[in-house]
Amino acid sequence: MPPIQVVIFGASGDLTARKLIPALASLVHKGQPAEGLRVIGVSRREKSDEAWRQELREAIPPELKDAFEALAPHLGYEAADVEREGDLARLKARLDTLPGGDATGRLFYLSLKPELFAVSVARLCTASLLPRQREDEATAWRRVVVEKPFGHDLASAQKLNAELHAHLREFQIFRIDHYLGKETVQNLLGFRFHNAIFEPVWNRQHVELVQITVAEELGMEGGRGGYYDATGALRDMVQNHMLQVLALVAMEPPSSLDAEAVRAQKVALLRSLRVPTRREVAETSVRARYAAGELRGERVRGYLDEEGVPRDSDTEAFVAIRAEIDSWRWAGVPILLRHGKRLKKRFTAVQVQFRTPPLQLFNRPDGMDDDEYRRALREGLLCQRRPNVLTLSLQPREAITLSFGVKRPGSAMNMTPAALRFDYRDTFGETTAPAYERLLLDALRGDATLFIRSDEIEASWRFADAYTSAWRSGEVPMREYPAGSWGPMESDSLFSGCEGRWSEGV
Amino acid sequence: MPPIQVVIFGASGDLTARKLIPALASLVHKGQPAEGLRVIGVSRREKSDEAWRQELREAIPPELKDAFEALAPHLGYEAADVEREGDLARLKARLDTLPGGDATGRLFYLSLKPELFAVSVARLCTASLLPRQREDEATAWRRVVVEKPFGHDLASAQKLNAELHAHLREFQIFRIDHYLGKETVQNLLGFRFHNAIFEPVWNRQHVELVQITVAEELGMEGGRGGYYDATGALRDMVQNHMLQVLALVAMEPPSSLDAEAVRAQKVALLRSLRVPTRREVAETSVRARYAAGELRGERVRGYLDEEGVPRDSDTEAFVAIRAEIDSWRWAGVPILLRHGKRLKKRFTAVQVQFRTPPLQLFNRPDGMDDDEYRRALREGLLCQRRPNVLTLSLQPREAITLSFGVKRPGSAMNMTPAALRFDYRDTFGETTAPAYERLLLDALRGDATLFIRSDEIEASWRFADAYTSAWRSGEVPMREYPAGSWGPMESDSLFSGCEGRWSEGV
Repeated sequence: MPPIQVVIFGASGDLTARKLIPALASLVHKGQPAEGLRVIGVSRREKSDEAWRQELREAIPPELKDAFEALAPHLGYEAADVEREGDLARLKARLDTLPGGDATGRLFYLSLKPELFAVSVARLCTASLLPRQREDEATAWRRVVVEKPFGHDLASAQKLNAELHAHLREFQIFRIDHYLGKETVQNLLGFRFHNAIFEPVWNRQHVELVQITVAEELGMEGGRGGYYDATGALRDMVQNHMLQVLALVAMEPPSSLDAEAVRAQKVALLRSLRVPTRREVAETSVRARYAAGELRGERVRGYLDEEGVPRDSDTEAFVAIRAEIDSWRWAGVPILLRHGKRLKKRFTAVQVQFRTPPLQLFNRPDGMDDDEYRRALREGLLCQRRPNVLTLSLQPREAITLSFGVKRPGSAMNMTPAALRFDYRDTFGETTAPAYERLLLDALRGDATLFIRSDEIEASWRFADAYTSAWRSGEVPMREYPAGSWGPMESDSLFSGCEGRWSEGV
Repeated sequence: MPPIQVVIFGASGDLTARKLIPALASLVHKGQPAEGLRVIGVSRREKSDEAWRQELREAIPPELKDAFEALAPHLGYEAADVEREGDLARLKARLDTLPGGDATGRLFYLSLKPELFAVSVARLCTASLLPRQREDEATAWRRVVVEKPFGHDLASAQKLNAELHAHLREFQIFRIDHYLGKETVQNLLGFRFHNAIFEPVWNRQHVELVQITVAEELGMEGGRGGYYDATGALRDMVQNHMLQVLALVAMEPPSSLDAEAVRAQKVALLRSLRVPTRREVAETSVRARYAAGELRGERVRGYLDEEGVPRDSDTEAFVAIRAEIDSWRWAGVPILLRHGKRLKKRFTAVQVQFRTPPLQLFNRPDGMDDDEYRRALREGLLCQRRPNVLTLSLQPREAITLSFGVKRPGSAMNMTPAALRFDYRDTFGETTAPAYERLLLDALRGDATLFIRSDEIEASWRFADAYTSAWRSGEVPMREYPAGSWGPMESDSLFSGCEGRWSEGV
């Protein structure tokens, strides 16, 4: 295998030291993808190769020390401002002297501020570091990894896509969403399409409701208040990570695992998300921010009192949405999405709630006969239990749980809730590879399956924009919830009738 | 609630001391079904009430001592030969003096040799102890529990049914199969019809194969060789218990849990079992007996050397059958039944094996591309894994296991077997009520759901007879297997192609 050059723009940044270098070190340590990997960090500040290595060495977690030392000799540093032509010419000269030179594969990782994505690519072109657009280029390929956020609404994402496409072809662009690097997220595909028993019930005939929660305990620690307030819960989590998870959960089966086959089905799903009218947004979404409260026994301040958050902020730190998918498979099935900061317990889970049997034979209350029981159920005076919920827990436990009813021992035919359980760690041990390691390896190999295609990004923004624009018009009041609770009580009313309620984790 | 009288014919027998009295004691101890329960044991030998009580007291397991003493004052004994009129007149006189007298409910439990079932009922009628046939008789009801075996072939079962029906109406007859008293067997109904997610895949479109195994380690201990040799594996286990389990696994949903609704669906299933021709029996059944071998580290003798077994015996101690159900739901799905003595490990389990996905996206071998992989699968050069098998374990572990494929951590999309598990004991603790306790309570209440109706018995015998008669004609050779193995290798060939193989328990 030929050598590979990785160029990280934003080499002094937090992401580089915490995620990218550990991931690359781990890969080199495992002998993947190639022996000839060279990594050049680029940032504006002057420093020597050794100074950069030393910075990284100090940040590396203890369990990766050995791996890091295997990578260290292959690390170099180049001070450059991506907007200055001379700097990039110098960078090119250095890369050309590395093994493979100009004739080998190069990955440019843009760990930069979003407003620099387009200009960086343009300048790299001017400096002849980009493009090289032939799809069949086996060795001297050029790829660009673009960090999030990719735009802040549909218009800005479209503009950025157009700017990138002016220089690069789509197969060269790797828009990263680290959620897709998680084992449990990838397993959504495997779980659905390797096991033939779920697909026949994975539709409106059998699924009553889908809910996805990303609940966080964190607030605005680490000075993130300023950034967060310009973003909000919807754009920070729902538009990207949660819609990606939803796409994997709800998409049609692809005809292969090729990047284009998988992503075509994902984008079809995202495009079938109903874009709500303003009135629908008011009826089906709840936005809120946390007030002061108590979390794990400690008093925590409210969102408006967080450092970096303007006192007149109108940004949500919690969002709950009842969405719909306009497709033959999902029409009419409520899709409930919820994300918030400072909630009671950190967890991320997908729950697929199946319908009850068409005929309820069990759990008839004492003193009711069969006819009375059936009438009460028909008329909604009684709610049937929902015995079957498939829970795909993504964090902190990585687990799959299928709840079902089992006969309670005794002479009555009463069914009681039970669960079939599977825990990743019990089977595979503690460590699965970090998301960035998997994604970097894929980018080095040119496999874009787990990266976001331009049309996916745009479909996601089209959906998210409907909410932000309706919210901006003031039709949806900002709710409050005490930090350490499960969010504003208004979010409970997104469920109706016997549909159930928000999960509180497992 | 009015008093109830229970009359046990065969009061000196093993079943009475080991099962019936402990079950009644436990019921009385729990306050079920009534305070006024009186139990009269009947046998030919003369003995006093107290002598019988003392016999029973000595046989009662320690944990039921207290319960037994609650029952003891209500136990009486009457020496009687069921064939002698005077004896039964004396019995009647005694019963009439008990609380409720002739105007209360009476349950006659025939724990007798099968050849006495019909004559006992006839004599009880002559003695005016039976019948009382009004279905709406709330208090002074008369019911008869008939032990197994109920006939030894279709003709004898039909004859016995006719003899009983000459005196009694079907709702008065409780043909017992203790398998139906097991919690896990009853849960088959609950599991299927309370959980809406399995029913949509519970059919030929999604199920590839069903297998049911009752594997025993026991041989002919306790002098049972003589009885067993006159019966054989098919009639001892398959015709009754295993077909009952199959009926619950494969029947259509009933419209209520009424005895008649449930049993109508069971009998419909049993009648849809294809009755094979002689040639089909030869192709789809294996009969065998064990040779000497080793089981759990001990040498054990072969079947022909067992005490009580004639040296020229032609009786099977092992049977394996590949059956078919002629119904819209099950047509073409192989139903594999296996039962044998002296097998490697005791277990009873139902396994429902689901088809593989129509398109295999995962686990492509190295060096094959998608097209080659698909061709190899189509042409049967490779067998796809069967990731989804639902195992309902009835003993010794009472558990439900759903196997499925989960992504193995790593950069390839390889799926590895995993399982969702539920164990009864983890949830409900060690003790569920013994089968006889449940069944006696049902009989006292008049609930015949878990008892075998006349048409069920006959449908079962119709199926079993096809095998015994073909075997008798000598067309199916008797195979041998070493004690302590999984049976004769010929039974493996009942599976074809990629269908899999016999379970070895969980």
